[in-house]
Amino acid sequence: MPPRPLTIHPVTGLPEFMPGDDLAAAFWGAVQAQGLALAEGDVVVVAQKAVSKCEGSRMALSAIDPSPFARYWAEKWGKDPRQVEIVLRESRRIVRMERGLIIAETRHGYVCANAGVDLSNAGTAEGVAILLPEDPDRSARTLRERIRDLSGRSVAVIVADTFGRPWRSGLVQVALGAAGLLPVRDYRGKTDADGRELKSTEIALADELASAADLVCGKVHRVPIAVIQGYEAPPGEADGRALIRPPEMDLFR
Amino acid sequence: MPPRPLTIHPVTGLPEFMPGDDLAAAFWGAVQAQGLALAEGDVVVVAQKAVSKCEGSRMALSAIDPSPFARYWAEKWGKDPRQVEIVLRESRRIVRMERGLIIAETRHGYVCANAGVDLSNAGTAEGVAILLPEDPDRSARTLRERIRDLSGRSVAVIVADTFGRPWRSGLVQVALGAAGLLPVRDYRGKTDADGRELKSTEIALADELASAADLVCGKVHRVPIAVIQGYEAPPGEADGRALIRPPEMDLFR
Repeated sequence: MPPRPLTIHPVTGLPEFMPGDDLAAAFWGAVQAQGLALAEGDVVVVAQKAVSKCEGSRMALSAIDPSPFARYWAEKWGKDPRQVEIVLRESRRIVRMERGLIIAETRHGYVCANAGVDLSNAGTAEGVAILLPEDPDRSARTLRERIRDLSGRSVAVIVADTFGRPWRSGLVQVALGAAGLLPVRDYRGKTDADGRELKSTEIALADELASAADLVCGKVHRVPIAVIQGYEAPPGEADGRALIRPPEMDLFR
Repeated sequence: MPPRPLTIHPVTGLPEFMPGDDLAAAFWGAVQAQGLALAEGDVVVVAQKAVSKCEGSRMALSAIDPSPFARYWAEKWGKDPRQVEIVLRESRRIVRMERGLIIAETRHGYVCANAGVDLSNAGTAEGVAILLPEDPDRSARTLRERIRDLSGRSVAVIVADTFGRPWRSGLVQVALGAAGLLPVRDYRGKTDADGRELKSTEIALADELASAADLVCGKVHRVPIAVIQGYEAPPGEADGRALIRPPEMDLFR
């Protein structure tokens, strides 16, 4: 069967989220308000920041007493020592720490800038840093269940964030947590259109879905959620942890 | 203005391409045959392999006399020394060469496995390796001009390939060459929905478009081209080279 077209809908009209907000209910209300017919198998891609805000995954700068190392490094590179301290606390390993940049492995195992800590709200009156969700796979599963309860539809959910990459400019959105789909597809043993066997080609489908969703979300509009319709998901299910390359397979640890 | 939905169409019914084939004409014929209304501003994402095949960017293994180093390394890791030799010839720098894997910087500047050389046809009777296009930006510009001549529509073109990433499992499709769009959007100076200024957030839009297109192309069907409609491109234009991180900005050279 030839592949079908795929449509990506921005979910508009969502509020600024606060700790304790019901993200699934807000999503379902917005989807109904904009007349979007949510269907079985749709993929709902949610920005990590919205999830973290609802889950209260945040840290007030005023509560932070920076370590001597955080103070030293912050002063050297003109950073706020409390911000540096939060990044270090969210890290289980530093991959690079130079030129004022910190690339760290988070407690979950993601490798990214500032251990995924969003400092863009840190300079405001509130002085708050938004952290990654405690367990993005659990967040995805919970959202998926809540959406099923509210809508009666079984969708897949991806909790996504924008990450930089070595060697390439700019950020792309990738999947942190996932529920209800196969994040990585292994084509080993499959044959191509010419009947030749495909060798060890694994495609990070959930990352491609996350990137696709970012095209209608963007940074300027407040569109933290997109719905992807018509995606022909391969059979299977695993959580977003499958997207973290095992250390023994990684040449760039 | 809130963002609109975006649709990604697979272009079906394309043949296996051979050197000298007119890719733009084949594309335009297939688009008309499937009744897809190509529009101004559509983004056409073409798999590098189709471009390379039409451009004759290939190398017969029978013509290769491997160097002693290629022979040594191939024997150590159970590879074909002629394949290793081709990969080395396509490289201007080796980033990692261990555990039987070669991560190289190509003559263009892309960092990827096997310097972008596709060896999947190498084991067949023809024994041919498909190389990256000589200049993917030129390929994208040429396709764009030919499609404009044939269809009367001014589209953007991305020449894409699937690349692996450090730290994350699986490949995602990225943009090598681009024409008629802005590959990287810089949000510096823009404000978010709350009026806060966004700091140095660059999004690799062309890579996200390439990943989105891969969702309808896949490896199993012969769908080397997708058309993305409804994408709200930010103003501006640059070539795909803008997606290569400058060495002085890169912590992982």
